[in-house]
Amino acid sequence: MTVRVMGYRGGTRRVPGVAFRSHAPPAATPELSTVSAPSRVAAADEGIGADELALATRNHGMPLEAMRAEVTPPGLHYVLVHYDIPWISPDDPWPVSVHGLVRHPLNLDIEQLRAMPSVTHRVTLECAGNGRARLAPRPVSQPWLVEAVGTADWTGVPLRDVLAEAGVLPAAAEVVFTGADHGVERGTEQDFQRSLPLADALRPEVLLAYAMNGAPLPPQHGSPLRLVAPGWYGMAQVKWLRDIHVVDRPFAGYQQAAAYRMRQDPHDPGEPVTRMAPRALLVPPGFPDFMSRVRVVRPGPVRLEGRAWSGTAPITSVELSTDGLASWTAAALGPEPEQPWTWRAWHADWVATPGTHVLAARATDAHGRGQPLEQPWNLGGFCNNAVQRVTVVCVES
Amino acid sequence: MTVRVMGYRGGTRRVPGVAFRSHAPPAATPELSTVSAPSRVAAADEGIGADELALATRNHGMPLEAMRAEVTPPGLHYVLVHYDIPWISPDDPWPVSVHGLVRHPLNLDIEQLRAMPSVTHRVTLECAGNGRARLAPRPVSQPWLVEAVGTADWTGVPLRDVLAEAGVLPAAAEVVFTGADHGVERGTEQDFQRSLPLADALRPEVLLAYAMNGAPLPPQHGSPLRLVAPGWYGMAQVKWLRDIHVVDRPFAGYQQAAAYRMRQDPHDPGEPVTRMAPRALLVPPGFPDFMSRVRVVRPGPVRLEGRAWSGTAPITSVELSTDGLASWTAAALGPEPEQPWTWRAWHADWVATPGTHVLAARATDAHGRGQPLEQPWNLGGFCNNAVQRVTVVCVES
Repeated sequence: MTVRVMGYRGGTRRVPGVAFRSHAPPAATPELSTVSAPSRVAAADEGIGADELALATRNHGMPLEAMRAEVTPPGLHYVLVHYDIPWISPDDPWPVSVHGLVRHPLNLDIEQLRAMPSVTHRVTLECAGNGRARLAPRPVSQPWLVEAVGTADWTGVPLRDVLAEAGVLPAAAEVVFTGADHGVERGTEQDFQRSLPLADALRPEVLLAYAMNGAPLPPQHGSPLRLVAPGWYGMAQVKWLRDIHVVDRPFAGYQQAAAYRMRQDPHDPGEPVTRMAPRALLVPPGFPDFMSRVRVVRPGPVRLEGRAWSGTAPITSVELSTDGLASWTAAALGPEPEQPWTWRAWHADWVATPGTHVLAARATDAHGRGQPLEQPWNLGGFCNNAVQRVTVVCVES
Repeated sequence: MTVRVMGYRGGTRRVPGVAFRSHAPPAATPELSTVSAPSRVAAADEGIGADELALATRNHGMPLEAMRAEVTPPGLHYVLVHYDIPWISPDDPWPVSVHGLVRHPLNLDIEQLRAMPSVTHRVTLECAGNGRARLAPRPVSQPWLVEAVGTADWTGVPLRDVLAEAGVLPAAAEVVFTGADHGVERGTEQDFQRSLPLADALRPEVLLAYAMNGAPLPPQHGSPLRLVAPGWYGMAQVKWLRDIHVVDRPFAGYQQAAAYRMRQDPHDPGEPVTRMAPRALLVPPGFPDFMSRVRVVRPGPVRLEGRAWSGTAPITSVELSTDGLASWTAAALGPEPEQPWTWRAWHADWVATPGTHVLAARATDAHGRGQPLEQPWNLGGFCNNAVQRVTVVCVES
């Protein structure tokens, strides 16, 4: 496959509008490449455009009040689908091929996978683009604010059991996972594909998952089979998984070599996006204004609570600021999760006084990684774990 | 309760930005009203702002490929929540009061309701603001494109059975439903409340629903109890229902008298938003470009399909245009739904030729109501059933 990094265009378009005009294809004998606009960043004064809105109305974050539950209830877990949701019949046997640098290529199907010994992991997943819409300038893509996260119980077969049955050959370097979702992205027609280095693919927690929260996968979460690689951002969690290919070199497919890299400009090869950076989120307290989402509380004690996670190491502390990030105090951590891939609860008590307050929380993990107050910028808007701010107005009742 | 229609401000703000500055409350001793900005429409060149985006990342439409299923799979049905999702313990007995102009006020709870004879209806629901983001100028609110719809099997107790047990008195005119979702909207603090005229409330299809698709209601759909009033737009389907009040006059609460009216300006009393206008939607064919969502198909036969519904009468025809609304031909209708509140499938076969095509479908119901090509404008962006356009690029493989 030829990977093309389409030309970069700075934020020069002042007037995005919302009518669907900006990417209208030409009228006759079009080429596939014409359906894609080049990647770009928004102008400083540019609101969200029609293309970003079309993604935002299809995909969705997790309303932050859902952090009250350790396991996100069905339908509230964040969803990002690059192309369309493949519509698979429940009767589809769903053949899955395991091939490449293996002694015994396997042709499995969903029933065979369901018959193998299974495990269940409680895993927090986050989109690599979470927070993108808060960057300045804003990379034009799925415009996440901060809600692209969720936690579920995923049941399936450890990938390493399947790879052991196939017998990985010594020359193997990576495992490439292909999903059934098909589309065009920056001019490249593709099925969604991502790889894991072999050592990561062989970790015991990596699953071929067929159930979510005790039920078969919903269509938007990869029915009937998906990869779950705990600790990694969402792009690694290949949904509608239909092919597993063991290869001898780093995979150079579009989603690996062109997208999901931390670049400063399109000529920068960039670092790959891998595991989730630490992040704490706060359940916005009180009640909201419908349109501004500003929070209202009454004077007096307010329980502040939330969850925190990191893809590299357990969370060791969460600190809270109630004065606009001027000072920080330790929050109380909930019990250490039974599995290290699950977010950790935290809480703190605050006495609200009349006025306007900016609340914030920040997490640190066992590797000493924390959260920046202002996010270093990158072209794709990835791995943004800048500290969340929540504006609260305290009014007398 | 005093209802205030907050001042209207025309679209004069040229630069919305995405930073959360525009509605920042003042720094000291705030009043509740200051958390709300006045309602307004966007300037002609104004992209979606931070406030609209915050709603779009919480709420979500139904990806249109989900119309392949008559019953929308869990998590794909559209969701609109005005304030926060109330977080109710599964152990909460959920007392529901039925009072006002009744002979025998009732204090029910969720277990008592579950023990009563139940029915299940397959109901298509649509948000009254569906299509708002395509209006020009755009009313600033939840920025729906066209996906705010879904169909579910709702199980519960007919409201009229409960009202019969309570004994409605002759002076009764309306029934007011109060949910547990609490917030501020245009300066008015409120629990979400809506009414139905008594004759509508007594229709046999109106349910106090406690199950969706055979499972207890998910939190975002009103757990543990909601109203389902088939045929009406979503604002009537009060979620987290905790109070039923029979009254002797038209209800003048915020969501009835201030919001959800078809106004040309804020001094216009306007007509109330009630039942769903007819609409046909097309499953976008082929596969999409990630960012533009433009569709790609190969030359040759393409099956076009979708669903159509109306809140007032059965769908009697769907017409399709494949030439940018210049000409229309009849689509084949699927079987008449078993219940008149369910959307109806339709399909048509099209032979794609290389080039760019604009597809569209339009529905007519048994009352002769159809869909406009261009939507008459109103201040709230309600009841927009303008014909959907789908741009398709046909390229040789």
